[in-house]
Order: sequence, then C-alpha cells, then structure tokens
Amino acid sequence: MSLAGLSINLATVRRQYNFAQAVDACLIQGITSIAPWRDQVEAIGLQEAVRIVEANKLRVTGLCRGGMFPAADKEGLAAAIDDNKRAIDEAAALHADCLVLVVGGLPAGSRDLPSARQMVTDGIAAILSYAREQKMPLAIEPLHPMYAADRACINTLEQALDVCDLLGEGVGVVVDVYHVWWDPRISGQIARAGAAGRILGHHVCDWLAPTRDLLLDRGMMGDGVIDLKAIRAAIEKSGYHGPQEVEIFSSENWWKRPGEEVLSTCAERYLTTCRL
Amino acid sequence: MSLAGLSINLATVRRQYNFAQAVDACLIQGITSIAPWRDQVEAIGLQEAVRIVEANKLRVTGLCRGGMFPAADKEGLAAAIDDNKRAIDEAAALHADCLVLVVGGLPAGSRDLPSARQMVTDGIAAILSYAREQKMPLAIEPLHPMYAADRACINTLEQALDVCDLLGEGVGVVVDVYHVWWDPRISGQIARAGAAGRILGHHVCDWLAPTRDLLLDRGMMGDGVIDLKAIRAAIEKSGYHGPQEVEIFSSENWWKRPGEEVLSTCAERYLTTCRL
Repeated sequence: MSLAGLSINLATVRRQYNFAQAVDACLIQGITSIAPWRDQVEAIGLQEAVRIVEANKLRVTGLCRGGMFPAADKEGLAAAIDDNKRAIDEAAALHADCLVLVVGGLPAGSRDLPSARQMVTDGIAAILSYAREQKMPLAIEPLHPMYAADRACINTLEQALDVCDLLGEGVGVVVDVYHVWWDPRISGQIARAGAAGRILGHHVCDWLAPTRDLLLDRGMMGDGVIDLKAIRAAIEKSGYHGPQEVEIFSSENWWKRPGEEVLSTCAERYLTTCRL
Repeated sequence: MSLAGLSINLATVRRQYNFAQAVDACLIQGITSIAPWRDQVEAIGLQEAVRIVEANKLRVTGLCRGGMFPAADKEGLAAAIDDNKRAIDEAAALHADCLVLVVGGLPAGSRDLPSARQMVTDGIAAILSYAREQKMPLAIEPLHPMYAADRACINTLEQALDVCDLLGEGVGVVVDVYHVWWDPRISGQIARAGAAGRILGHHVCDWLAPTRDLLLDRGMMGDGVIDLKAIRAAIEKSGYHGPQEVEIFSSENWWKRPGEEVLSTCAERYLTTCRL
C-alpha cells in the first residue's frame, strides 16, 4: 500500500481530534501508523489507547515524549527520572517503536549550558537499563537551536550521536527535518547515524519562510524550503527505510482546518513531496 | 576609561535617533565606539557621517552590512557584488574596523542550501581583491540557524571559518553571542578563530526565554540566558581583546524606551555582565 511509509504524529491534529477520533480519521485515509503524545493517551486512558492500537493493528512509530532531564535540584531530577520510567512503560504497552526524548533546556535561572547537557547524558544513563529491560529504544530528538534555552539543549545530530556513543545500546536518534535541515553537517551525521543503526525515526514537516512563531508555525511538506527528498535520500542511503512521521504544530493554519483535510493533505504531500 | 571596550551598534537605538543624534547620545554616556548600518549612514549622507566620525575621533567597530549574495540569476549576483563594493567603499570612508557580511539565505523559490552556500563563498571571493585593495577586512557573521532560509545560510562559526580558510587573508568572522551561544562546538571554534587572527568583532545582547519574535525580540545583556562572561573569556583567551558591540533589535521593549535609558543601560550592563 502506497501509504505504508507514512505515519501521523497526532499532534498534527491535536485541536481537531482526540486519540480515538484521530485513529478513525487516519484509517479512513488508509493511514495505519500513528505517533501519539502522552497527554493524548492519558485523555482516553492508556488501556483504551492500547485496545485501539491492538484492535486496528496500528503501528506506533513513537510515543512523544520523555526527556526534560535538567533540573534545578535533586528532587527535580528524581521526578524527571520517575516520569521517564512511566513513559517507557506506556511506550511498551502501546508497542511503540521508540520513546522520543525531548531532552530539556536550561534549568530555571541557569545559564550553564554545558552543565545542562551533562544532566541530559546522566539522565538518559539513569533510565537506560530500565528501557533495555522493557526493550524500549530511547530516541534522542535533537531540537532546533532556537529551543536550546527552554526545550532541548541537544541541538544537532552530531551532539545526539556523541551521547549515543557514550551510552551504548538502546539509544538512538530521531531525525526531524524541521530541526536539522539547516545543519552544514547533516549529510555526514545522517550517514554516521544510519551506519550505527541509530536512526529510530524520521519526522517531516516544512520550514516556512517567513516563520511567524518559534513553536507553532510549522509548515506542511512542500509549503516551505526544506529539500525533503534530499534528506530522505540521505536517510535511506544510510540504511534506514522506516516510516516518515508527519508532525506539524500550526496554531494559525493546519490546527484550524478540518482534520480530514489535514490528513488527506498529509497523505498527498507524502506521496508527492517526501517519498522517493 | 572603563567604557573603552564598549561599542554601540546603532541598530540598538534606530527608532530613537538618527546617526548624528545617536553619536551625541553615545558621547554623553562616554561611549566613543559605534557601528552604524548603511541605511543610517545614507539617511544623513556618507560625507556628513564621515565628518562626524572624524570630528569626534570615533572608533567605528564595523559597518553593517554587506553580503546577501545568493541570487536567482546572474543579474542578481552581479547586483549583489556591485552593492558589496559600494559597501566596502563606505566602510573604508568611515574608517571601519570591518565590513560585516550577512551572507544571505536561499534565493527565491530555491530549496538548495548547499548551492546557496557555494554562492556565498563565490560571492565573497568575487569582492575579496577589491576589499584587500581598500584594506577593508570582511567579517562573515554566522547567523542563528533560524535565519538559514531568509538571511544567512552560514550558521555556525565552524562553517564561516571553513570559508575563511578557503579564501585566505582579508576575511574573518564576527562572533555574535545571539547567533552562536547554543553551539556545542563554540569553544573550539572560538579558539580556532582567535589563533588564526580571524576574529574581527564581538557582538553582545541576550537570548530571552521565552523569545517572542524570531527577529525583533533580542534581550539586553543580563536579561536572558547567555553566559556572556564565559563566551568573552573564551574570546579573550583566543587572543582577541577588541570591543564588545551591543546590537539589540527589540521592537516591543528597547526600541520603545528613551534612547538615553537604552544607552545608559547598555553601559551599565557592559560593566556588570559583559566585561571580565
């Protein structure tokens, strides 16, 4: 089936649908892979979400999200580790391909980026044996440098892969085009990631020019400036052939349109703009 | 004098003052180094700007800006090269330390970032002998990756220094903390730049968390998350001891305050937050 390589991150239709509605709307379009956020799972209950996934034989390409490790004190770090273990449990229950980690930015009041980065490495190390026991791969998602302060202090594929090398098995990366398309080192680092079997996901959307909001103005594939096929070609050349997961945060455009239109556009653009 | 290491990029007070007014306001604060933008020079005329600089023995730490090389066609590229030569003339007339290059992003309709980057290297190469004749150093300013599409496709110090190495003498970099503070490679690349004598300027402001606009929400030093002294220490350790130039685009805050307040705050924060 031509949409077998397409997954929908449910944030893309979070304003239109709850988890169950989103699954139904995807199935109508012939889309059988999804990636939910934890709040979307929680809203209908984990047990019901698992039932829906199993009943429809859905592929869950990732659960968003664990991470957010840097903390101002030990209590904060301990709470983050506990929460990540719960996220691993949820991802395992949903048969997710991986738990996506948005690693966190600077602790409140801090300007010490190297220290925050060390907290991330230490935090992932602290949950890794638990993740391995649950056979749940941890996928570090390097986020665009504009999120270094408040969302993720891992900002390049190279940096994420350095952490992976340090930690060993059970950790990999998500290549989200929105975050890495600008990186002069992207080709080499994709090759490195693929050769090491570290690519756990490939997220797509587009970078609009101009971009009007730092967080909620992502574009539909084909509406922006990212050379999506070139990045996909590098990813496939590196040995990864998994799904492309559409993740669009768009408060003023796609979140305001009918969900059916959004999903059919995702499917169409996947075929014309993303797939090789 | 304690403010000898401070320069004011006149964009910081562009809404409050014209060139002549800004110089007067700087001098009242004891600030004797400035960096104007070309439109600010043009507004009072180059000859008058030169007269003001010379009469007040001002140091001009840079002229903003040349660059903007990538073009959709040969005519566009030729126009860019002509304009850059005029910018070199203006910078030389003003006795500027360097001409700052904001290199340009993707040509209209293009998604080919590697090609745009090649156009930048070629464009700088095309004006370099002219710049050398005028003894005007060209300062590549790597811009934050969020500007890769529409302002500058050189987004890291490493990338800028690779271009410098390719082109030889007469080209260097501006280290603007706003653009590079997040970069995991910053320390090594500052050391590399300093060792090669390639640092031509050091711009300061701050990264606000949250940042509300991609272009016009820069913070005053000390109001954000950048470890300004750590970056300055790395720069001085690399061998560069030139001025710190304050460049703040702030449509909703600093551009709305009295210019005198902005400049006195710059002076105070320079002393408390920037200077080692």
